[in-house]
Amino acid sequence: MTEQNSFQQWRLKLHEIIFEADTPAGKLFDIVLILSILLSILAVMLDSVADIRKEYGSILITVEWFFTLLFTLEYILRFASVGRPLKYATSFYGLVDLLSIIPTYFSLIFPSSKYLLVIRVLRILRVFRVLKLVQYLKEANLLIQALRSSQRKITVFLFTVLTMVVIFGSLMYVIEGESNGFTSIPRSIYWAIVTMTTVGYGDISPATSLGQGLASLIMIIGYGIIAVPTGIVTAEMSKSWKKEPVSTQACPECSAEGHDHDASHCKYCGSSL
Amino acid sequence: MTEQNSFQQWRLKLHEIIFEADTPAGKLFDIVLILSILLSILAVMLDSVADIRKEYGSILITVEWFFTLLFTLEYILRFASVGRPLKYATSFYGLVDLLSIIPTYFSLIFPSSKYLLVIRVLRILRVFRVLKLVQYLKEANLLIQALRSSQRKITVFLFTVLTMVVIFGSLMYVIEGESNGFTSIPRSIYWAIVTMTTVGYGDISPATSLGQGLASLIMIIGYGIIAVPTGIVTAEMSKSWKKEPVSTQACPECSAEGHDHDASHCKYCGSSL
Amino acid sequence: MTEQNSFQQWRLKLHEIIFEADTPAGKLFDIVLILSILLSILAVMLDSVADIRKEYGSILITVEWFFTLLFTLEYILRFASVGRPLKYATSFYGLVDLLSIIPTYFSLIFPSSKYLLVIRVLRILRVFRVLKLVQYLKEANLLIQALRSSQRKITVFLFTVLTMVVIFGSLMYVIEGESNGFTSIPRSIYWAIVTMTTVGYGDISPATSLGQGLASLIMIIGYGIIAVPTGIVTAEMSKSWKKEPVSTQACPECSAEGHDHDASHCKYCGSSL
Amino acid sequence: MTEQNSFQQWRLKLHEIIFEADTPAGKLFDIVLILSILLSILAVMLDSVADIRKEYGSILITVEWFFTLLFTLEYILRFASVGRPLKYATSFYGLVDLLSIIPTYFSLIFPSSKYLLVIRVLRILRVFRVLKLVQYLKEANLLIQALRSSQRKITVFLFTVLTMVVIFGSLMYVIEGESNGFTSIPRSIYWAIVTMTTVGYGDISPATSLGQGLASLIMIIGYGIIAVPTGIVTAEMSKSWKKEPVSTQACPECSAEGHDHDASHCKYCGSSL
Repeated sequence: MTEQNSFQQWRLKLHEIIFEADTPAGKLFDIVLILSILLSILAVMLDSVADIRKEYGSILITVEWFFTLLFTLEYILRFASVGRPLKYATSFYGLVDLLSIIPTYFSLIFPSSKYLLVIRVLRILRVFRVLKLVQYLKEANLLIQALRSSQRKITVFLFTVLTMVVIFGSLMYVIEGESNGFTSIPRSIYWAIVTMTTVGYGDISPATSLGQGLASLIMIIGYGIIAVPTGIVTAEMSKSWKKEPVSTQACPECSAEGHDHDASHCKYCGSSL
Repeated sequence: MTEQNSFQQWRLKLHEIIFEADTPAGKLFDIVLILSILLSILAVMLDSVADIRKEYGSILITVEWFFTLLFTLEYILRFASVGRPLKYATSFYGLVDLLSIIPTYFSLIFPSSKYLLVIRVLRILRVFRVLKLVQYLKEANLLIQALRSSQRKITVFLFTVLTMVVIFGSLMYVIEGESNGFTSIPRSIYWAIVTMTTVGYGDISPATSLGQGLASLIMIIGYGIIAVPTGIVTAEMSKSWKKEPVSTQACPECSAEGHDHDASHCKYCGSSL
Repeated sequence: MTEQNSFQQWRLKLHEIIFEADTPAGKLFDIVLILSILLSILAVMLDSVADIRKEYGSILITVEWFFTLLFTLEYILRFASVGRPLKYATSFYGLVDLLSIIPTYFSLIFPSSKYLLVIRVLRILRVFRVLKLVQYLKEANLLIQALRSSQRKITVFLFTVLTMVVIFGSLMYVIEGESNGFTSIPRSIYWAIVTMTTVGYGDISPATSLGQGLASLIMIIGYGIIAVPTGIVTAEMSKSWKKEPVSTQACPECSAEGHDHDASHCKYCGSSL
Repeated sequence: MTEQNSFQQWRLKLHEIIFEADTPAGKLFDIVLILSILLSILAVMLDSVADIRKEYGSILITVEWFFTLLFTLEYILRFASVGRPLKYATSFYGLVDLLSIIPTYFSLIFPSSKYLLVIRVLRILRVFRVLKLVQYLKEANLLIQALRSSQRKITVFLFTVLTMVVIFGSLMYVIEGESNGFTSIPRSIYWAIVTMTTVGYGDISPATSLGQGLASLIMIIGYGIIAVPTGIVTAEMSKSWKKEPVSTQACPECSAEGHDHDASHCKYCGSSL
């Protein structure tokens, strides 16, 4: 029983170090972790540059396997120390942790898959928790909330845009034809997206007068309708943030509300707040 | 007379299946319809890819004719079952339904016209009704309403942009000349639109110093004035959505709604709220 | 004296036809004028297309001279009929009217200057007065007013952008060098403007790693700061338009203000407005 | 002692001329300074154009050294006349002043570094003080304040964008491969930034169907999320500028300002307004 107890204690200790950042050990662990992630991503990136790979290839492979084994060990420890392992494994961070080590093993079969290791960048999201950047998380939540409450409007907008690029893309395919680079409808739709989002690579561009006319129309539409998502998000943000800066305190005398945060007296009856 | 009655009943039944989505049969019909539309659009797209056409061309043509005949039959049935056929034929959906079958027949004369079948994508708008996505339609209406009430401001804006691209395009034609790709005024106007909307293909771009200077000016103007439609739409949306949270209280006398929160009397009849 | 009187009357009549659009004759004159402008611009545009010029060049020149002489006659008549000719000559419309005829005469010396005739497009602004599109002019004024009241903020913004493109352009000139297309600082500044406004022709693009890194920075800055003018204009429009839809009428009983336009009773005391 | 006094007076006099713009001499000094800056920047720019350098190179070098020596003298005088030289040397303007003369001396070793002299453009910021453009400075402060109070939200946004371009860039590297121009992950990330910010040079563009599909997704995301910073800044500006039109009435008791229009009592001391 003492043994089981000491195992339990050891697991709690481990959990504290790996999952929390309140103790010095936990904080140190998280900082080392983030540095390791950054270094391993750097190694993956450098490995993709032909000149560097040629010269330092063997070192980079060693680094890659070192970090992968380290992260594998960490993943096993997380699994061992957490109360409900299955819940961790299916959580967002659990999946990211797993996806951050698989590609290296996978690269034994498909070599280029190892570049997918950059998914490790998602692990850095933990930095917000580690460095107690709670305020940033709060701001992020405000943004996500504003986007979520305008979700339906954005869906309608996206549906409209997709319908337009399908129709305009096909029209351009018929007008310009395969000799001008519009070799198929999917490719023409790709062109329509490139144009409507005002990216404009120029790898495909209309050559006939009619095509250029239609392209001009698409551009002006794309230039104009960017106002719609912007308007949606802005109106949503203005609405939800306006509620914030007024105190929820009611006057004890006349019960009036809507006082500023710095008010010390009711602005309607003058009694002390 | 019984015969006529049974015909009438049969027509009502047909109308319910084809036009409504409340009964299981009507819902099934709409779901099959949407799947057919998606499949037929996919077939048209695949047919436009040279490699696929070469190998599966005959199958795709069969699929195309199968769906076209199916949609033709559906169009005839809609015509037969609807109370006022002419009104249906001239409605938005009626026109789209017709345009969705014509190109195939037309393609017997002009082969490439069949690619216009992608207009069928507009038929999918019915999905909103089928899946009872009323909320989405409501959001779409809010967007359309905001755009409509800022219609005049947008017209003024578009007129200004068009005037600018005509003048800037002509100036560039005079400055750059035909040797630098600005081969005519219409083409230069096309370039001005490409530049002002910040698309920037690069198929035509200024080569002289003076031309690059003027182009820089156009770009900065285009970059700046995108603020105008965005501002218009945002201000309109903020305004119209702010009206929403007015009091839901109805006047006990005249039942009028839309009172402000601080109103103590009905603003229409003056009775106490 | 009768002669002078009849001349005076004749001048008033002429003024009414040319400058006003209230009488049938005045309206007809303006409509003919706008059609002439559109036709003459079309002729200038067509003349710039090499193929068309080769075939119909002589006709187009005739058309051009016909309209130029017509507009010259109109300009003289405007001069003769207006009360204060000098004020007209220096007004916006007066200058545009003059600039609309000069290029043809000028083209006898510099042939390509005739394409500047498209300045005639500015004369079409009169269409708003002719067709009594007063509402549109009002909307245009609202836009101009919003832009004007945010003029200082926009100046500060433009100054910041210009400072940034000068510095970033020079940095890129030093980093990329003349071999990669950045042949001089002015040209590099042109590139920086193309990049920062997200136009991105691709006629010049960084080739070195360091250059691509700096370019990425410029792009992200350019992508982000577009929020600034948009925010300025939107905030300005929201502010000025919010004042509009409230009646200036005060309650005759309790003097409360801020009633809606459709209110017939004071919302505070209930007395009739 | 008189000597020291006269030196002190001479220093004060110098300070007044160089640092202030209230006296005629001070104003003249500043105007001459700004003209010198503009001329020296022009000389640097012209020197970078190969054709001009070939012909007027020696003159431009003379001009450059003339202005550099002039600015060096000015820098020494500023140092001599200012009360706390170290504070000046480490201030923003002090650093800019120093950076504006170093490159010329540096160019004796690294010739191309002289083009960094354009940093002098930052010195022109003084124009705002000279020309008493206080109002503009106030507007600039409003803008900076709005940006600062939305700083955290923008950081979250930038972090999200950077995470996305790293992941999307790596995915494209794996999908497209080195044969299509995506020669390394850093270069692919550069492409992802070019695409997401809707710049779209077209120097690298996807060639495979899968790559074009993913690129389309990135473009639509980039086109959509520009709404986020715009929304943030706009909402922030609307909020902070809306506070402005509060009542200008000061409390008769405690002189506090910033009361709402409907306030009948001071919100700080409770006395009647």
